[in-house]
Amino acid sequence: MDFNDFLNHIGGWLKGTGPHADIVISSRIRLARNLEKMPFPHWAKKENSEKVLVLAESAFKRVEDLKDSLFLRLESFDSIDKQFLVERHLMSNEHAIRSNQKGLLVNPEENVAIMVNEEDHLRIQVMESGFDLDATWRAINSVDDRLSELLPYAFNADWGYLTACPTNTGTGMRGSVMLHLPALVMMRQINRVLEAIAKLSFTARGLYGEGTQASGNFFQISNQVSLGQKEEEILGNIKGVIRQIIDQEMKAREVLLAEHRELLEDRVWRSYGTLKNAHIISSNETVELLSMFRLGSDLGILKGVDRGLINELFILTQPSHLQKLENKKFSANERDIKRAQIIREKLGMNQK
Amino acid sequence: MDFNDFLNHIGGWLKGTGPHADIVISSRIRLARNLEKMPFPHWAKKENSEKVLVLAESAFKRVEDLKDSLFLRLESFDSIDKQFLVERHLMSNEHAIRSNQKGLLVNPEENVAIMVNEEDHLRIQVMESGFDLDATWRAINSVDDRLSELLPYAFNADWGYLTACPTNTGTGMRGSVMLHLPALVMMRQINRVLEAIAKLSFTARGLYGEGTQASGNFFQISNQVSLGQKEEEILGNIKGVIRQIIDQEMKAREVLLAEHRELLEDRVWRSYGTLKNAHIISSNETVELLSMFRLGSDLGILKGVDRGLINELFILTQPSHLQKLENKKFSANERDIKRAQIIREKLGMNQK
Repeated sequence: MDFNDFLNHIGGWLKGTGPHADIVISSRIRLARNLEKMPFPHWAKKENSEKVLVLAESAFKRVEDLKDSLFLRLESFDSIDKQFLVERHLMSNEHAIRSNQKGLLVNPEENVAIMVNEEDHLRIQVMESGFDLDATWRAINSVDDRLSELLPYAFNADWGYLTACPTNTGTGMRGSVMLHLPALVMMRQINRVLEAIAKLSFTARGLYGEGTQASGNFFQISNQVSLGQKEEEILGNIKGVIRQIIDQEMKAREVLLAEHRELLEDRVWRSYGTLKNAHIISSNETVELLSMFRLGSDLGILKGVDRGLINELFILTQPSHLQKLENKKFSANERDIKRAQIIREKLGMNQK
Repeated sequence: MDFNDFLNHIGGWLKGTGPHADIVISSRIRLARNLEKMPFPHWAKKENSEKVLVLAESAFKRVEDLKDSLFLRLESFDSIDKQFLVERHLMSNEHAIRSNQKGLLVNPEENVAIMVNEEDHLRIQVMESGFDLDATWRAINSVDDRLSELLPYAFNADWGYLTACPTNTGTGMRGSVMLHLPALVMMRQINRVLEAIAKLSFTARGLYGEGTQASGNFFQISNQVSLGQKEEEILGNIKGVIRQIIDQEMKAREVLLAEHRELLEDRVWRSYGTLKNAHIISSNETVELLSMFRLGSDLGILKGVDRGLINELFILTQPSHLQKLENKKFSANERDIKRAQIIREKLGMNQK
C-alpha cells in the first residue's frame, strides 16, 4: 500500500452500508494506550518519543490484523498531505499540526488507524459503516489484545489503563457514532435531544470530532465516561442512547413526510439542483446540500442514488482532497470552482 | 376570439424577437384620448360613462386595424379574470379594481389594447417585441387616426389633446420601453443610470408600470413630458436615451464575461438548477431566477434556450394565470406549488 492509493478509494466505513445506514454513517471506537516507564508524549524528550515510534512500528508489523498496513512518519509529509489524512478521519488535527516524532498506521480498508505519540503513545481507532459497535469492538479488541502481548502497556490493577489525561484513564475507551439527523434539525427537536444526552454524560460534536461544530446535520455522539465501567457496559450504554436517537429521527422523518411533504421535496430537489449546477461552491454549503441530498435519497424522494457516492462526495470535496486530486495548491476561490466541477462530474454532467 | 383563447398563446410583444431583443423586452406607446363635452371618467355619472362605452365600442367595430378584437365589459368578470388581464399587461390594476362602466378592447395578437373609462375615456396602447418604437408608433398612429374620424376627440388648438390629468395634456402620449438590465444591476451601475435618466425627465418603473418596484432586473423606462413637443420629437428623445442604456448594459455584460465569468456562470446555472428542481416557489423568486436564466441564454452560457419560452414563463407563473390554467382558486401556498410544477414541466421534467 502506498500513500497515493488513498486517492483511488474511500474508507470501508464510508460504504453507506450496515445496520441503520440511513441514519448512522459510522460507528467508531478508540482506545488510548501508553507504554510503561515512558513519559507521556507532551512531556517526552525527542529520544523517548523516537523510541516509542520504533517500538510501535516493529510491533505493528507483527500483528496479523494489521497486515499490508501503511506506517507513516508524519514529519516527512507536507501540510496538504497531513490535512488530507485528517479529512479522511484517520487522525486528529492536533496530530497534523505538531508532527515531530509522530506516526500513523492505516490498514488498507482504512477502518483501522493508530496514531503514535498523539496525546497518548497509542491511539487505536476502528471505524465501521452503519450502526455496528459490536463488530467495531471485536475488531479493535483483537488488535489491542495482540498489541498488549507485544508492547509493555502502562496498566494499573486499581486504575486500569493509564493515560495522559485522567478523563481517559480506566478503559481508555471512547465509543462514538456519527449520526445524520436532518429531520430532528428541521423539526427543531435537536436541542432537546442534545440536552437529554448531555445529562447522560454523552457529548455531541461535528464531523471532525472535538472542537468542531455540527454541520450538514451530522452529529458525532460519544461517551464521556471511561472509568469505573467495563467496556461492554459502556458500549451497552452508548447503544441504548443511540437507539433512542435513531427512533426519534425516524419518527421526525415520518412526521416530515406526512405533514410537510412539499416543503421537504422542495428542499431536497433544490439541493440536488444546486449541486448539479453550481459552478462555485464552498465546503460548508456542499455539506449542507449533500445532507439534504442524502435525506432525499434515504426517504425515496430521489430514486436510484448510490449512498456510497454521496459519502464519497463528502470526502472528495474537502480542501486537501481537491488539492491532492489535482496535485496542485489552490486558493480558496479556485477550490470552490474545482469543488463544484467535481460534484457536477460525479452527479453526471448536466446536459443543457 | 374568445376570452379563453388568451390561455392558449402569449402576446406577440412577448415573442422575444425584434431589434435588441437580448436587452429590450418590448416597446410600448399609449395615447390618452377623451371625447368632447363629456365629463372625464372620475367625475362622470353612470349614464355618461355608459354612453362613452357604447360610443367607443361601436367606433372600434369600424376600425379595420381592430378587426376580430375582443371587447370586454369588465363588470361581468370576476377578480381572477381581471387580474389575469393585468398580468398580461393589457390593462392597469386601477382598471381592474373599479370596473363599473369600464371596457377593454384587445386585438387577437394582444399588441393593441384600449381601456375605456380608465382615467381618460380612451387609453390606447400598442406594444411590440424588442426595441421598435417606430413600428409601435406607426401602429398606434393608424388606430388613433381612424378613431379620430369616428369619435369627437376633445382637442384644443393651443393645448392639444385634453386629458383628465394635466401631465398628459398635449400629445397625450407616453412612450416606454421594458429593459432587462441584469449586468448593470450586478455591476452596481444601475443607480447611476437611473439618476441620469431622471434628470432628463424619464422615469423607471417595475414590470407592471406605475407604482410597482423593479424586480428581476426589469425596468420600464418612460418619458414624463407630453406637452410642448411633437410626437416624433418625444419618441426621438426616448430612442436616444434607450440606445445609451442598451450600450451601457452591453458594456457591463462584456465586463462581467471578461472579469467575472465564473461568478456569472455560477449564478446562471444555479438559477437554472433551482427553476428545474424547486417544488415550491414564490412569484418574486421566479422572476429573479428567470432573469438570470434569460441572461445566461442571451450570453450563450445556456445553449438552445427559446427566449419565447422564458417570456412565456414570466406570464404563466403569475397568480391569476395559474388559477385560470387550472380553473380553480388557489391559496398562496398552493400557487407556489403549482408554479413550481408548471416551470418544471415547461423546462422538461427532471429525470433523476
